[in-house]
Amino acid sequence: MNYRMIFYLSGQILRVLGILMLLPIVTALIYNEPASRNAFAVTALVLIAAGTLITLKKPENKSMYNREGLATVAFAWLIVSVFGAIPFFLSGEIPNFADCIFEMTSGFTTTGSTILTDIEAMSKSCLMWRSFSHFLGGMGVLVFMLAILPHNDTRTMHIVRAESPGPTVGKLVSKMSFSVRILYGMYIALTVLETVFLLFGGMTFFEAINHAFATAGTGGFGVTNGSIADYDSVYIDVVITVFMMLFGVNFSLYYLLLMKKFTQVFKNEELRVFLCICLASMLIIAVNIMDIYGSFWQGLRYSSFQVFSTVSTTGFATADFTTWPILSQIILILLMFVGGCAGSTGGGLKVMRIMLLFKIAIKEIRCVLNPRAIVTVKCDGKAIDKDVVRGVSSYFVLFAFLMAFSILLLSLDGHDVGTTTTAVITCLNNVGPGIGEISPSGNFSIFSDWAKLLLSVDMLLGRLEIYPLLVLFTIRRNK
Amino acid sequence: MNYRMIFYLSGQILRVLGILMLLPIVTALIYNEPASRNAFAVTALVLIAAGTLITLKKPENKSMYNREGLATVAFAWLIVSVFGAIPFFLSGEIPNFADCIFEMTSGFTTTGSTILTDIEAMSKSCLMWRSFSHFLGGMGVLVFMLAILPHNDTRTMHIVRAESPGPTVGKLVSKMSFSVRILYGMYIALTVLETVFLLFGGMTFFEAINHAFATAGTGGFGVTNGSIADYDSVYIDVVITVFMMLFGVNFSLYYLLLMKKFTQVFKNEELRVFLCICLASMLIIAVNIMDIYGSFWQGLRYSSFQVFSTVSTTGFATADFTTWPILSQIILILLMFVGGCAGSTGGGLKVMRIMLLFKIAIKEIRCVLNPRAIVTVKCDGKAIDKDVVRGVSSYFVLFAFLMAFSILLLSLDGHDVGTTTTAVITCLNNVGPGIGEISPSGNFSIFSDWAKLLLSVDMLLGRLEIYPLLVLFTIRRNK
Repeated sequence: MNYRMIFYLSGQILRVLGILMLLPIVTALIYNEPASRNAFAVTALVLIAAGTLITLKKPENKSMYNREGLATVAFAWLIVSVFGAIPFFLSGEIPNFADCIFEMTSGFTTTGSTILTDIEAMSKSCLMWRSFSHFLGGMGVLVFMLAILPHNDTRTMHIVRAESPGPTVGKLVSKMSFSVRILYGMYIALTVLETVFLLFGGMTFFEAINHAFATAGTGGFGVTNGSIADYDSVYIDVVITVFMMLFGVNFSLYYLLLMKKFTQVFKNEELRVFLCICLASMLIIAVNIMDIYGSFWQGLRYSSFQVFSTVSTTGFATADFTTWPILSQIILILLMFVGGCAGSTGGGLKVMRIMLLFKIAIKEIRCVLNPRAIVTVKCDGKAIDKDVVRGVSSYFVLFAFLMAFSILLLSLDGHDVGTTTTAVITCLNNVGPGIGEISPSGNFSIFSDWAKLLLSVDMLLGRLEIYPLLVLFTIRRNK
Repeated sequence: MNYRMIFYLSGQILRVLGILMLLPIVTALIYNEPASRNAFAVTALVLIAAGTLITLKKPENKSMYNREGLATVAFAWLIVSVFGAIPFFLSGEIPNFADCIFEMTSGFTTTGSTILTDIEAMSKSCLMWRSFSHFLGGMGVLVFMLAILPHNDTRTMHIVRAESPGPTVGKLVSKMSFSVRILYGMYIALTVLETVFLLFGGMTFFEAINHAFATAGTGGFGVTNGSIADYDSVYIDVVITVFMMLFGVNFSLYYLLLMKKFTQVFKNEELRVFLCICLASMLIIAVNIMDIYGSFWQGLRYSSFQVFSTVSTTGFATADFTTWPILSQIILILLMFVGGCAGSTGGGLKVMRIMLLFKIAIKEIRCVLNPRAIVTVKCDGKAIDKDVVRGVSSYFVLFAFLMAFSILLLSLDGHDVGTTTTAVITCLNNVGPGIGEISPSGNFSIFSDWAKLLLSVDMLLGRLEIYPLLVLFTIRRNK
C-alpha cells in the first residue's frame, strides 16, 4: 500500500477542512460571537498549518489503487469527524468531547441525530458549521476536494468509487474529474434554488441557507428545537418535501435532463420504483393518520413530509411520528432501510440495492422451482453483472451482521428494545430520529459516551458503506 | 406436474393423519373424556374413509421430480394443519376455528405459540394431540409416512429434500428410505429416554410423555399454564435443558456416534459453532441476571434453560425473560434467528446457514479489499459448492423480505412495535414466545382472526423454509 500518498492526501484534507471553516468564522463575525469565532479561527489556522507542512513534500510514487482509495476515504472521514469537532469543544458550547464527535460525525455522515437538548442556545456560527457539514458530507468530502483541486483521473476514480454510495458508480462524461465538477455544480445550483424558495416562505437568510444545506445533504440538522414543525407553514413544508425528494434522486438523471435525454430519465427503473414506494407509503400513512389531523389532506401534508424525510434519510420532522398508529411507524422504519437512490445524497441501503435484492429473491424462487431454468437479474432491461449481484446480496448479509452486532453492543447501555434497535437502524442508515427515547421529540444525549462513539462508528459505516473503514483493520496484515 | 401423484400422496396423508388420532382417542378413553373422544373418533373415521377412497386408484405415472416433491410437502402440511384442527373445534374446546388452525399449525410446525388462555382447562386428549403434533412435525409428517410405508427411493429423496430443514440434505446410508427409518428410530429412542428421565423427576406419565414430545419436536407446548416454571425443580430443568440441546443437534451426528466415528463428530464445524454460541450466551446472560436471582449459579440455571429453549426454538419457559435486562433480551431475540443445527428438529435460519452467511460476509470483505484475490467459502475443511453459497444468501434475502412484509401486514392489527415485530420473528423461526403482549406470561389470543391466519402462514413458511408453499402460487402458470 502506498502510505506516503495516503498521508499526503490526508494533509490536503486537513488544509481543505481548515479553509472550509471560513464560513463559520464569517458567520461569527456577522453575528458578533467572539468565543466561537476564536475557536474556529484557532482550529482553522492549526489545520491549515499542519496540512501545509504535510503536503510540502509531494510523494514520488503517486500511484493509487483500490485499497489506497478505500484507506484514503476512511482516513479523510475520521479526520473531518474528529478535527471538525474541535471548535464545538474549544468554544465551550458542547463541553463533552464525545458529544462533539457524535455531533460532527452525525453532520458529515448526513445522519442528523443530535445530542443537543437546546439547539437554540447554540451560537449561529456553530449551527452554520453543523449544517455546512451536511452539505459537504452529502456529496462527499473527498469528492469536493477532487472537484476543486487538480488530480489525476485514475486516482480520482478510485477515490470516488470508495466514497460514493450505491452498488456501482457511473461516469457522466468520460473524464471522472470533469464528472465530479458537473455533479457539484448541479448540487450547488439546487441548494441555491432551495435557499431562494425558503426565503420566499418568510425564513431569514440564515435559516434558509441552513435548511437548504441540511436538505441538500439529506442530513436533518435544524436551527430550532422543534425542527420544521416550528414554522408551521404549508408553503415551507411543501418546498422542503419537494427538495428532499429531489436530493433523494440519482444526480446523473439531472445531467440527463440537462442533456435533454428525457425518455432515458422517465424509463429509469430505480426512479420509478423510488417514486412508487414513496407514493404508496404517502397514501397509506395519510389514510392511517387522517383521524388525528382531521382530514385526508392534512394527513397527506404530514405523511408526505415524513415519508420523503425518512426515505431520503434527511430526518426533518413536522410531527412526532411515534405518536402515529403502529402501521405508519412500521412503514417509516422500513423506509429507513430503503433510503435514497444510488448516486443521490440519501443514505440507507439505496433503492437500487433493494430493487436488486428483490429481484435476487424472485430469481432464487424460480431457480428452486425450476432447477434447470437459467434466470438472470435484469435492470433497465440489461442483465446485471454476476459480480454486482453477488456483491449486493453479500453487502446485505454484512449489513445485517453489523446491525445485529451493534444492537447487541448497544444493549449494554440499558435502554429499551425499541430505542436500542432503532438507534442502530437510524444511525447505520443515516436517517436521524428513531422511536422510543430518540423520537423526534427526544435526542441522543441519553446514551453514555462509549455508546455515542459506537453510534458514530455506525454512522460512518453506513455513510461509507462499510468497506473503507474495514480496510483500516487489515492494514498491518496485508502490507 | 404430476397432479395425480400429488393427489394420491395427499390421500395417503389423510389416512395416516386419521390413524395417528388413535393416540388422543386412547387418551380420551383412559381419562374418560367423551366429548373429545367422539370428536377425534369422528374426524379419524372421516379422514381414513376419505384417504382410502382417494388412494383406491393408484396413479399410472408415478414419476416425481423436484416440483412434485415441493407441492406434495406443501399440500401435506396444509392438510394436517387444517384437518388436524377439526377435533379441537368439534369437541367445543376451542370454539373459534381460526384459533383451532393457529393452534394446530403451531403444533405441527413445532412453534409452540398458543392462543389458549387456560391450558389446564383443556381435556387431556386434546393436550396429548397438541404435543403429539410437535413430535410428528419435528422430524417431518411426510418423512414419517415414508418411514412406515414402502416407497420408491428417488421419490423419497425429492420429498425428504423438500421437507427437511437446512441448506443441504445428506443421506446416512446409500438408500434414502433406509436413512429415513434410521433417523426416526434414533428420534423415538431419544424421546423414550427423555420420558424415562422425566418420570424419575416426579412427573406423571402423561406429563412426562407430553413434555418429551414437545422437547423432541422442539415445539414448546406444555400441559400447565406456567410452562416448566410450574414444576420448580432443578432436576427437571436440567433434564429438559440437556434434551433441548440434544434435539437441536444434527441427527446424522448421532448416527456417526453409533458407528463409533467419534473424531468426525468432534470435528464437526456446525456442532462446535452451535455449542460456542450457546455457551457464550449462557454465561453472558447468567452474569447479566445474577442480581435478579441472587447468585451466579441460580442465574446460570435460568439462563442455560432459556438459551437452549430459544436456540433450539422450543420455547419452554422457566422464567419470563421479558423482565430480564435488555442485553439478555436482545441476545435471546438474536438466538431466535440462529435456531438449531441443520438436520435437527430445531427451527430458525439454522446454525449452518448463519455460519455460511458469516463466511460469505468475510469473503466479500476480502474480495473488496483485494479485488484480485480468489476466495472460496469453506466448511469442515471442504470448499462449499457455489450454488449452495448463492442459495444460502438468496434464502436470507428472501427471508428478510418475507419478514418485512409480514411485519407490515401484522401492524394493521394495531399492537405495539415490540409485539408486532417479535410475533413475526417468533413465528417465522418457529420459536414460540416473543416480547410485549406475547411474552411467556402472555399469549397470541390478542390477535384478530386474520392476523392469526397470517401468523399460521408465517409458521408454515418458517418450518418448510419458504419454497414448498410458493410452488402452490405458481402451479397454474407452469403446467
